[in-house]
Amino acid sequence: MIRAGVVGATGYAGAELVRLLSGHPGAELTAISSVSFEGKPLSEVYPAYCHLCDMVCGTQSEVVEKSDVVFAALPHGLSQELAAECYANGKVFIDLGADFRLENETEYKEWYGGSYVHPDLHALAVYGLPELFREKIRGKKIIANPGCYTTAVPLALAPALRNGLIQKEGIIADCKSGVTGAGRSPGQKTHYPELNESMSAYKVACHRHTPEMEQSLSRVADAPVKLTFVPHLLPVNRGILATCYAKLTDGATMEQIRKAYHDAYDSEYFIRLLPQGREADIKNVRCSNFCDISLHIDSRTDTFIAISAIDNMVKGAAGQAIQNMNLAFGIEETAGLKLFPPAF
Amino acid sequence: MIRAGVVGATGYAGAELVRLLSGHPGAELTAISSVSFEGKPLSEVYPAYCHLCDMVCGTQSEVVEKSDVVFAALPHGLSQELAAECYANGKVFIDLGADFRLENETEYKEWYGGSYVHPDLHALAVYGLPELFREKIRGKKIIANPGCYTTAVPLALAPALRNGLIQKEGIIADCKSGVTGAGRSPGQKTHYPELNESMSAYKVACHRHTPEMEQSLSRVADAPVKLTFVPHLLPVNRGILATCYAKLTDGATMEQIRKAYHDAYDSEYFIRLLPQGREADIKNVRCSNFCDISLHIDSRTDTFIAISAIDNMVKGAAGQAIQNMNLAFGIEETAGLKLFPPAF
Amino acid sequence: MIRAGVVGATGYAGAELVRLLSGHPGAELTAISSVSFEGKPLSEVYPAYCHLCDMVCGTQSEVVEKSDVVFAALPHGLSQELAAECYANGKVFIDLGADFRLENETEYKEWYGGSYVHPDLHALAVYGLPELFREKIRGKKIIANPGCYTTAVPLALAPALRNGLIQKEGIIADCKSGVTGAGRSPGQKTHYPELNESMSAYKVACHRHTPEMEQSLSRVADAPVKLTFVPHLLPVNRGILATCYAKLTDGATMEQIRKAYHDAYDSEYFIRLLPQGREADIKNVRCSNFCDISLHIDSRTDTFIAISAIDNMVKGAAGQAIQNMNLAFGIEETAGLKLFPPAF
Amino acid sequence: MIRAGVVGATGYAGAELVRLLSGHPGAELTAISSVSFEGKPLSEVYPAYCHLCDMVCGTQSEVVEKSDVVFAALPHGLSQELAAECYANGKVFIDLGADFRLENETEYKEWYGGSYVHPDLHALAVYGLPELFREKIRGKKIIANPGCYTTAVPLALAPALRNGLIQKEGIIADCKSGVTGAGRSPGQKTHYPELNESMSAYKVACHRHTPEMEQSLSRVADAPVKLTFVPHLLPVNRGILATCYAKLTDGATMEQIRKAYHDAYDSEYFIRLLPQGREADIKNVRCSNFCDISLHIDSRTDTFIAISAIDNMVKGAAGQAIQNMNLAFGIEETAGLKLFPPAF
Repeated sequence: MIRAGVVGATGYAGAELVRLLSGHPGAELTAISSVSFEGKPLSEVYPAYCHLCDMVCGTQSEVVEKSDVVFAALPHGLSQELAAECYANGKVFIDLGADFRLENETEYKEWYGGSYVHPDLHALAVYGLPELFREKIRGKKIIANPGCYTTAVPLALAPALRNGLIQKEGIIADCKSGVTGAGRSPGQKTHYPELNESMSAYKVACHRHTPEMEQSLSRVADAPVKLTFVPHLLPVNRGILATCYAKLTDGATMEQIRKAYHDAYDSEYFIRLLPQGREADIKNVRCSNFCDISLHIDSRTDTFIAISAIDNMVKGAAGQAIQNMNLAFGIEETAGLKLFPPAF
Repeated sequence: MIRAGVVGATGYAGAELVRLLSGHPGAELTAISSVSFEGKPLSEVYPAYCHLCDMVCGTQSEVVEKSDVVFAALPHGLSQELAAECYANGKVFIDLGADFRLENETEYKEWYGGSYVHPDLHALAVYGLPELFREKIRGKKIIANPGCYTTAVPLALAPALRNGLIQKEGIIADCKSGVTGAGRSPGQKTHYPELNESMSAYKVACHRHTPEMEQSLSRVADAPVKLTFVPHLLPVNRGILATCYAKLTDGATMEQIRKAYHDAYDSEYFIRLLPQGREADIKNVRCSNFCDISLHIDSRTDTFIAISAIDNMVKGAAGQAIQNMNLAFGIEETAGLKLFPPAF
Repeated sequence: MIRAGVVGATGYAGAELVRLLSGHPGAELTAISSVSFEGKPLSEVYPAYCHLCDMVCGTQSEVVEKSDVVFAALPHGLSQELAAECYANGKVFIDLGADFRLENETEYKEWYGGSYVHPDLHALAVYGLPELFREKIRGKKIIANPGCYTTAVPLALAPALRNGLIQKEGIIADCKSGVTGAGRSPGQKTHYPELNESMSAYKVACHRHTPEMEQSLSRVADAPVKLTFVPHLLPVNRGILATCYAKLTDGATMEQIRKAYHDAYDSEYFIRLLPQGREADIKNVRCSNFCDISLHIDSRTDTFIAISAIDNMVKGAAGQAIQNMNLAFGIEETAGLKLFPPAF
Repeated sequence: MIRAGVVGATGYAGAELVRLLSGHPGAELTAISSVSFEGKPLSEVYPAYCHLCDMVCGTQSEVVEKSDVVFAALPHGLSQELAAECYANGKVFIDLGADFRLENETEYKEWYGGSYVHPDLHALAVYGLPELFREKIRGKKIIANPGCYTTAVPLALAPALRNGLIQKEGIIADCKSGVTGAGRSPGQKTHYPELNESMSAYKVACHRHTPEMEQSLSRVADAPVKLTFVPHLLPVNRGILATCYAKLTDGATMEQIRKAYHDAYDSEYFIRLLPQGREADIKNVRCSNFCDISLHIDSRTDTFIAISAIDNMVKGAAGQAIQNMNLAFGIEETAGLKLFPPAF
């Protein structure tokens, strides 16, 4: 059994990791930590977990000591020292934060405002989006788990982009996120009476996930790709819906596009390519590690529209982190992740 | 492996059964039927099930033929002939409808308007609320699975009632139900814009679950018990919250009450008695087979208040049906039902 | 024109007052104050108010100076000094807080933990529930505006109680409140992902509105009345639904009950007695000053059930405060309050 | 007083018209009709309207007879004969359906599948989007009231387009609609448990509002404009959020853009241009006739992003229809429409 520990277990991503790990056939949760709730059982913070995970929150060091793999669900900037400690102790480190996601330190400084504490670790780190970069992840020790938007958008566009069926310029990602993406800390924007019956964009064209998406799309296209990214906050708990727009290259057809997606994704357990005429819906992937994708063409304007739906807490965070763990340890990639989404 | 079939698989309870059975270690889904969707895969009705249950809906007879246990999720009145067919063929029959729930045919006529088609089968049928009547269920062939309200209310009150700590007269059950309880068929009351931001009672003091609750409570009290039952419809998908009021008997204390509940429920996997000062919340049992119960006393008026929360689709329908299957087949009662509710 | 000022204008009740006063034909908003947002326009706090109320928040003293009537929407305990200042300056003072609601200082101490700062002012204060105590309110200078639950429950029960049709013992009020009742300050319980799809009780049988309800019901019954009160938090923005249970007195009939309610309420603009067979729904009173009431009897248990629905922010706070202002100034009681609730 | 009648009063748009007309100082509701509820009071269909509009639904002819202006809230295709009848009788006809919106019969045939029954009437009809085409509307007899999306999108883009600040090619409108836009009839997609916690697109790049938007934008640009339009269904009752993307023309700056919008809209009562750094939110316009607009630039990709928010039932239907009535009759354009949106 892989001994798994979670640092930052009382945040939403951490708590979801605990829940998913409890059903993993090849891993067991051995330690959790929380700065705010040290000394308290996780089930006191989340009464839903009562009798299922009454483990007491300890310290970060305890987690490192007791685990083969350390998942870090920490605010940005706090993962680098922990990564160093894990690396020094031979542990696998999977970071759900952003510290290791960007390969380019200049971009990291620009978007996150800090610099690399351990440039050597960054050189060792790999970006954990398995469906696009699986071979690089296997057996690695430091894995940067992608963010939620940055999972949904590249998966929606990669096959079309890789096959030259859409133009690299003028891509737009209009995304809609469930509220859990904003985390556990209450605030005015997520106060129930103010979010309920609301809908608005935020961080318009300046969200930190932008360079991360561009990094993945550029790798896939093997050329620089920029995109316009506008996130919106939805009054639902879970889910990312990414509606992505791109200009078709001359002569590209739906037939070619569907073939490219089938070639890319038919063997991917976690990607469900919807039949023509259906639209991806966050409802259908809730509490699962699936990414549903629907493909559309506006033939009046030669525009390609790919819509992807994931659960931001699962495929967009905790589920993908476990998928990366499975890859890092060389076990069945779907272990613990064959989650059956409820229909309602 | 127990071969399990679901008649009425495209209704909400049927669909939830399919989902839960897919994770059962000792049972496998062998056949499903649907009158409305015969010949279509279940995943066409519920795209969330795509790749997970693409089984095609057949006929009722096919289900009986291919299964060791037949779950019926049918409108009231349609289960009796199916029960007879199952019984004749040696199958276990678990009815999620109301046809076999009432022991008293007079009450059945009064509340449901029909008569017993096969009185002999009714004599064989057992009422499947395991935490109260477990021993009667083991090994049985015809099991009436309780309704959602009729699970939540008796579980909330039984230990106090059995131990004479509350009066048998004047019990009130003010219940609040999620919308899935109203089923899959659209209607004006469940049309999104009309239910959203609404809250109201319905079938005030005349809901068909009333005699079923009274039957259970009377058995527990070993004396006739009547209660006032008012259900309300909540703008949430899943959950029953039952706020139950009863007069304390003279001198009954919270200490005695908590002891009675601990004695009754500490060994029950699916019942979580909350610590003093917490209130049961439907959120914490969602997608699980738990029944959370909190206990309160209004010492100013000598009133006992027990609040229970279940997921109406799981402990209130499909989950409990599987629990009954496990009992009927003599396997581990919690098999397939150790469901970890999401925290959000 | 009555010059109206609002102290605590950036809280939910204060903001709703501002909105409703803007449509009042005989009053104009002349000043607002806020401790947290002094110097800022109200429309910065509530962008919905942009161009409609861009008035800048000033100090409490400025409000007193510029107004004929001062509405106070302050945390409990802070109104008494303000009341004194208003009274000294000949202003009408309408308190949306609890400081002047309880006539009995002992009860005030027990439930709120403070003592009366100006006992003489308390002697002058009147409880502003117009449909029950209208004559006492006219022309008064200090008016305690009832809370939301304490409007809904007494209105639901008063005619039955006054006419001796229900017993004074054993009354139960099972209430469900929209989230705006919890105020504007974010917290874990009202954080969107934790309240959404949830339902639970809170302050079971120990909510501060209990003695206030009992005070009103005791006056109506002309005898001491105690009740059991359990509030619940609903995942909707606005509304109180009060499901009230009482034992019928011997021989009391629905006919007598309906007559009592018609006699009491047919001339009340803000009370809508629903026809037999309908149930009160918070949806139907949203953004209005109505109190809808439906009447039911459980003849199996001789229990009377009255269900009332109000908008907690209007009839349960700001609307009723304006109704009290109208009474205090001797103008048409419905002025500014003929609000037409949206159907969806 | 203008005598106003509503044909199709029991649909959502019709019901909202009734509600808004009740507060209009210069108009009175004189007749309503409904095919499904003929002979029944409107308040039986919408209990929220009880005591406020208990008017009984009559026939279409009765409405025409008793009214100076007839609002038609009918399914597409049914308005043309009614328009003829109104025109013959000298009534003003305001159509909330699509029959008179498209100037080009070929487009009408392509998107709606029917032909013009009275081409002469179509020649007389005017498109009622006042902020863009006000002068054409004044005093007219047949007015085509725009749809909801087709109000939000052109208002968001018009000033930039008219002033040549954005390119006419490659415009994308990613829109999100509240559920009332789908009407009063229940269906599987709007069944509460299936829409709640969901989010998906529908009619991707093939929604009938597309040619209507293009017609308005082409007029504004004085050149053919095509756009890609993708609507999404939101789990909220009211609101359209339109996130519109366009390529900046060379050298266009935010300063120029803001100036263009200020020039166009500062004198428009119903348009609120948000300050830099804010984002339009449907919450802030709910139950009002406002259109809130926020402006953004993605300077990394030279993309202009305009976000508009309206209440689909008010500015997107009933409110705008009354605005058109006011223009047609030459009274104050804002009469009856100075609606103050609730903050929560």
